[in-house]
Amino acid sequence: MKETDDKGSRQTISANNSHKRSSRSEFDFIKQLRTGTSTNPPNSIIGDDAAVIKTSGEKETVITTDLLVEDIDFRRTTTPPYLLGHKALAVSLSDIAAMGARPRWSLISIGVPQDVWDTNFVDKFYEGFFELAGRYDVQLIGGDTSRTPEKVVIDSIVLGEASASASIKRSGASAGDHVFVTGSLGAAAAGLRLIERGAHLADQNLGEAEAEALDHLLLRHLRPEPRVGWGMILGQERLATAMIDLSDGLSSDLNHLCRESEVGVLVDSTQIPIDIQVRELCGRRRLDPLQLSLNGGEDFELLFTVKPENVRRLPRRVDGVGITFIGEIRPAAEGINLREGSRVWELKPEGWEHF
Amino acid sequence: MKETDDKGSRQTISANNSHKRSSRSEFDFIKQLRTGTSTNPPNSIIGDDAAVIKTSGEKETVITTDLLVEDIDFRRTTTPPYLLGHKALAVSLSDIAAMGARPRWSLISIGVPQDVWDTNFVDKFYEGFFELAGRYDVQLIGGDTSRTPEKVVIDSIVLGEASASASIKRSGASAGDHVFVTGSLGAAAAGLRLIERGAHLADQNLGEAEAEALDHLLLRHLRPEPRVGWGMILGQERLATAMIDLSDGLSSDLNHLCRESEVGVLVDSTQIPIDIQVRELCGRRRLDPLQLSLNGGEDFELLFTVKPENVRRLPRRVDGVGITFIGEIRPAAEGINLREGSRVWELKPEGWEHF
Repeated sequence: MKETDDKGSRQTISANNSHKRSSRSEFDFIKQLRTGTSTNPPNSIIGDDAAVIKTSGEKETVITTDLLVEDIDFRRTTTPPYLLGHKALAVSLSDIAAMGARPRWSLISIGVPQDVWDTNFVDKFYEGFFELAGRYDVQLIGGDTSRTPEKVVIDSIVLGEASASASIKRSGASAGDHVFVTGSLGAAAAGLRLIERGAHLADQNLGEAEAEALDHLLLRHLRPEPRVGWGMILGQERLATAMIDLSDGLSSDLNHLCRESEVGVLVDSTQIPIDIQVRELCGRRRLDPLQLSLNGGEDFELLFTVKPENVRRLPRRVDGVGITFIGEIRPAAEGINLREGSRVWELKPEGWEHF
Repeated sequence: MKETDDKGSRQTISANNSHKRSSRSEFDFIKQLRTGTSTNPPNSIIGDDAAVIKTSGEKETVITTDLLVEDIDFRRTTTPPYLLGHKALAVSLSDIAAMGARPRWSLISIGVPQDVWDTNFVDKFYEGFFELAGRYDVQLIGGDTSRTPEKVVIDSIVLGEASASASIKRSGASAGDHVFVTGSLGAAAAGLRLIERGAHLADQNLGEAEAEALDHLLLRHLRPEPRVGWGMILGQERLATAMIDLSDGLSSDLNHLCRESEVGVLVDSTQIPIDIQVRELCGRRRLDPLQLSLNGGEDFELLFTVKPENVRRLPRRVDGVGITFIGEIRPAAEGINLREGSRVWELKPEGWEHF
C-alpha cells in the first residue's frame, strides 16, 4: 500500500519541507512561485489555506473550471509543457469570454507523477501559463499540487467580473436574432488530425510556405487564443443576447445554445468562416473542411446572437479578429438546420462528448 | 491514438448528447443534476460556460481548490463513493474554515474512466457531496466532467465569504499568543493505518464496543468533519490572530504557521488532545498515539492562535466540539519546540508531503 498515504498539502498552493524525496521539494516550488523567476512574476497571495480576493459589489463574479487529463485531452509526447500551460489557461479564459466577462484571477491544480516532477515540466508549464496570464492581467491566486501514479492532470480555474446583470448566458437568444462567430473555424481540429498523423511544428522537410501553413493549423490546436477582447466588449456593450465558446464544435455548441434558449436556427453553410489554411491544406490531405468546421472542436471562437437593430453597433474587429454572420435564430418548432444551396439539413450535434 | 480526441465540454458542467457511447450520456447526467433527484437538490445555475455568483462588496471572497487523486489520496477499493463525495467537499470546507470564512459555493471537476462512469459511482459520489453541502447550505454552482484513462481524479473548489479584512491568515501570530486546537488528534491517521492492515467498517468479528471504537477511527479518515462552525465564529468575532487546518499533521502545519508568522512556539506534549480511541486501541496495535497525533495528517481540526486577553472570549464548544490549549507562541529565535516533561525537543515537520 505504499502509494496511499495521508493526504496533505490541501491548503492553497503550499507545502512542507521535510523528508525531501527529490531534488526539489514542493516547498521549494511554492517558494519559487512566490518570489518569481525571470519568466514568472512574483506572487504574494499564494501560500495560505485559501486565497482572498476583493470582488466589487456592483459586479457579478463568474467562475469556471476545466479539467485536462493526459491521454484524453493532450499527449505529453506531442504537447510541449509551455504550450500546455498556455492551453490550460486559454480554455478557461475562453469560458469567461463566453460569459461577456473580464478575467481577473486564476487557480491551478496540477497533479504529476514523480518522474515528471523531477524534470522542468512544471516550470515550463507555468512559463506558458504566465505568458498568457500576463497578457490579460490575470493573477494566479492559488491552486494545489499533488502527486499522481502515472498521468498528468490539470484543473484550471478562472474567475472574472462582469457589470451587474451583464453576463451573457446561453439562454438569451430569441427568434430573429442574427448569429455570428468570431475568427475562423476548423483549424484546431485539422491541426489535431495532422498531429495524429505525425505532423510536427517547424517541419524542415517541407517548403517554407507549406511549413508555415502547417504550423498555423497545429498551433490552433496546441495554442488556442481565447477571444478575451471580444467577450469583454460584447458584455460591456450588452450587444449579445446569448453566447457560447466553440469547444465541442459548431454543430454541438449551436445545439447547446439553441436548447438553452429554446429556439431553432438556420445556418447558411456558405457563410461559415472556414479557416483558409484548412481549405487549402485539407483538400490535399483528404480532410473535409466543412466537416472540420462544423464538428471539429477546440476552435475556441465565440458564437453569439445579436438583435437585428444592434448589429450596426458591432465593432468590425477586436484585437485583429473579425466576425462573420452565419445565420438567424428561428422559432424552436423550425429546428436546428443548415442550408446548403437549395437544400436544408438538420444540423445534428456531431462534436465531442466525454461519455 | 484512439484515446486522444478533441477536447470539449469545457463549459461549466455541461455536455452534449450525440453519439451515446454508454447507458447514460454526460448530457443526461447534467440534466439530472439540474432537475435534482430524491437525494440531490435541483440546481438551476449549472449548465453555462461559467457560473455567475453575487458576492457582497462589503465582504472578502475566499477560494480554495483541492485535488484528490486515486491511489495517492484514496483507494477505490476501500473508500465508498458517497464517503469520497463527502470527503472531497470536507477538505475544501476545512480550508475555508481555516480562513475564518463562511462557505457559500462549490464547483467539482471530476474525471472518471468509462467503466466507472457506467456504474453508480458518480451518483453515489454526489449523494455524499450533497449530504454535506446541504448541512452548511453550500451551493454547487459548476464544475467539469471528463473521461480519464484509468484513475478517478477530483478537484474540489469552494468559495466562501468573510467580513472585510476579517479572514484569518497563517501569518498573524505573534509571541505571547496562546495556541489552541479544536477536537482531538491522531484518529484519522490511525484509521488509515488500520485500513491499510485490512480493517473495515462494521466488523462483525469484533465485539460491539471494539467495533464501535474501530469505526470511529476509520470514519475519522474516511469521513472527516470540517470545523465550519468554529472557523466562522473565530473569523466573525476576530478572535484568532492566525489559523491553519491540520491536513498535513500538527508538526508540519505548526511549522507552516510559524514560518508564515515568523515566530517560534513551545508546545506542551501533555496538552495535546490525543483522541481517546487512539490511546486505547493503538497501544494494543503497536501504533504510537503521540506520533500519530503529531505527524499523522488529515485530522482536519483547526490550529489557531489567540491573544491572551481574548482567551476568555472563546466559546467552550461549537457544534459539540471543544478546544484545547496546547502551547504558546514564542519569538522566532527560540525555534519550534515540544516539551516532554523536563526535556524540550525541536518539533520537526514530519507530516505528509507530496514531493
